[in-house]
Amino acid sequence: MQLPGPPPTLEDVAVRAGVSRATVSRVINNQPRVSPETTAAVLAAAAELGYTPNAAARSLVTRRTGAVAVVLSEPENMIFDDPFFAAVVRTSFRELARHNQQMLLLLAHRAEQAERVGHFLRTGHVDGVLMFSPHRGDPLPELARELPLPVVFGGRPWLAEDGDSLHIVDADNHGGAELATRHLLARGRGNTVTITGPMDHRAAVDRLEGWRSATDSDRTATELRSAAGDFTRAGGERAMTELLARVPDLDGVFAASDHMAVGALAALRKAGREVPRDVSVVSFDDHPAIAASALPALTAVRQDPVGMVAEMVTNLHALLDGEDLAPSCRILPSTLTERASA
Amino acid sequence: MQLPGPPPTLEDVAVRAGVSRATVSRVINNQPRVSPETTAAVLAAAAELGYTPNAAARSLVTRRTGAVAVVLSEPENMIFDDPFFAAVVRTSFRELARHNQQMLLLLAHRAEQAERVGHFLRTGHVDGVLMFSPHRGDPLPELARELPLPVVFGGRPWLAEDGDSLHIVDADNHGGAELATRHLLARGRGNTVTITGPMDHRAAVDRLEGWRSATDSDRTATELRSAAGDFTRAGGERAMTELLARVPDLDGVFAASDHMAVGALAALRKAGREVPRDVSVVSFDDHPAIAASALPALTAVRQDPVGMVAEMVTNLHALLDGEDLAPSCRILPSTLTERASA
Repeated sequence: MQLPGPPPTLEDVAVRAGVSRATVSRVINNQPRVSPETTAAVLAAAAELGYTPNAAARSLVTRRTGAVAVVLSEPENMIFDDPFFAAVVRTSFRELARHNQQMLLLLAHRAEQAERVGHFLRTGHVDGVLMFSPHRGDPLPELARELPLPVVFGGRPWLAEDGDSLHIVDADNHGGAELATRHLLARGRGNTVTITGPMDHRAAVDRLEGWRSATDSDRTATELRSAAGDFTRAGGERAMTELLARVPDLDGVFAASDHMAVGALAALRKAGREVPRDVSVVSFDDHPAIAASALPALTAVRQDPVGMVAEMVTNLHALLDGEDLAPSCRILPSTLTERASA
Repeated sequence: MQLPGPPPTLEDVAVRAGVSRATVSRVINNQPRVSPETTAAVLAAAAELGYTPNAAARSLVTRRTGAVAVVLSEPENMIFDDPFFAAVVRTSFRELARHNQQMLLLLAHRAEQAERVGHFLRTGHVDGVLMFSPHRGDPLPELARELPLPVVFGGRPWLAEDGDSLHIVDADNHGGAELATRHLLARGRGNTVTITGPMDHRAAVDRLEGWRSATDSDRTATELRSAAGDFTRAGGERAMTELLARVPDLDGVFAASDHMAVGALAALRKAGREVPRDVSVVSFDDHPAIAASALPALTAVRQDPVGMVAEMVTNLHALLDGEDLAPSCRILPSTLTERASA
């Protein structure tokens, strides 16, 4: 029982356990030359006194490092240019810090980097992993499967189809894209096109499928009416220009990210098309600093990276606490924020 | 000697060392129950064949983890809002990856976070540390001193005055601010003010001192003619508005960051002062996406986070390679980029 008053010291633990201060220190720092009996006595005394000197002692008891890896498998420029990842990193840091865990942010994009990350994760430096690996061909999800650690994925990796053994939290990319496209259709925009993310990106494919499903487009129509941006503003502008050439009478655009939608608005302006009078635009993300301040403000499907990460951290802690959490892919619902652009 | 042909396999090493495949694997994965003689034979065979299966084997030979911590002691929002830190993280990642090292990004701002970071760094998870700790009262530099690891600081921590035992690479904040202010004076702007960063920030203090030195301002003049922003655009706008009230006939502004200078331009516009006709503005950073695209484009002292990090990584590797590198504070020179604002 922990008594009121000043917190117990290392000396108090030594007295209670009947050993020297140096022995307590050796136990706490996990050094050799302490018998199992003495170790047990010191830990018992520390527990009785409520002595938690630092993370070292805690990790000795719990066999934990206190660190959780957040792995982002994206080119390093994307991590700073894309507000989704900024939100992911901030939220991971805050949520883990609330649990007194140290976030280690690891970036990995190319295969040799994945190998290095895999090695680091395998060799006892972290208690668990939050992994964001959206790209096809990324070896990380396969590596993650073999880790003797809890891993929770943010967004489905390409592997998830093969097996249902993963813990995943994903946005409703398919449903959100359907919602966006139906919003265009309901406003009489029957001639829509879509600007997609890169086709090696899982969420980009899901959003394209959502648009296809809502527009009932076959393969030929999809090829004509879709163009790939790369989740950037410049990519969105290029794709919009291309689509205007291919489908001159288009009246609605579903852009699979806010950044690409802003680029599309620029291309439409240059082409003399007024939004929303001539063309309605709906985007995906609804990032406060982008969608609301675009001109015109963007009607957007709301993606919630904060909620996604909070859910991931909750699942990770359940796994770390030894709960029998069945693998699952939890899909967070999508909502639409209506603004001027559609 | 490594022969031409396919790279040697784990089997090749086993054959050469005269042991089983499982034994080679145990050695490589640093597992128990292998005699020192067998371990030596396996490592010798691996070296002869040029077999480097993965970082595990390398770290077994070098006793390294292959990971380097990049510690940023800033509020987590600053890391994404301030282009300096984005450049630091990107460059650290790239430079370390070139050396096949894994960057671990650790954020720490408040004292309890510093303790957690200190614990992680002390407990054998990394080979070295690149540390950015600019704020007064941050316990991290003191913790870093006691680490049994090479640590290189980006920017002087507050501690450095007490002792010269640290490895530091810093921008010439004092000299750069002098350069900026002299540029204003040389253009006949004799009535200058300065917008500073937060006064618990080392670089902010150095830049204020540079302005003081160039303007030969005493304490009273400095109090009248300086206002603290917080390195943000909004902070710069507030500080500029305050300074316009205090020094209505000001004709020159040295803003200690690009973001604050952009805020100052907005405040000057609202006050009906034209830049550079009525007031000249010089900023610090010269970030390509900010200084050059401001209206008018900003004359700015160039800060080079890429060069700073490259120098830090070079120093860190010298220390890791056991070179007898004397502690030093290397100051990178400042240059001025002239544009329309002054």
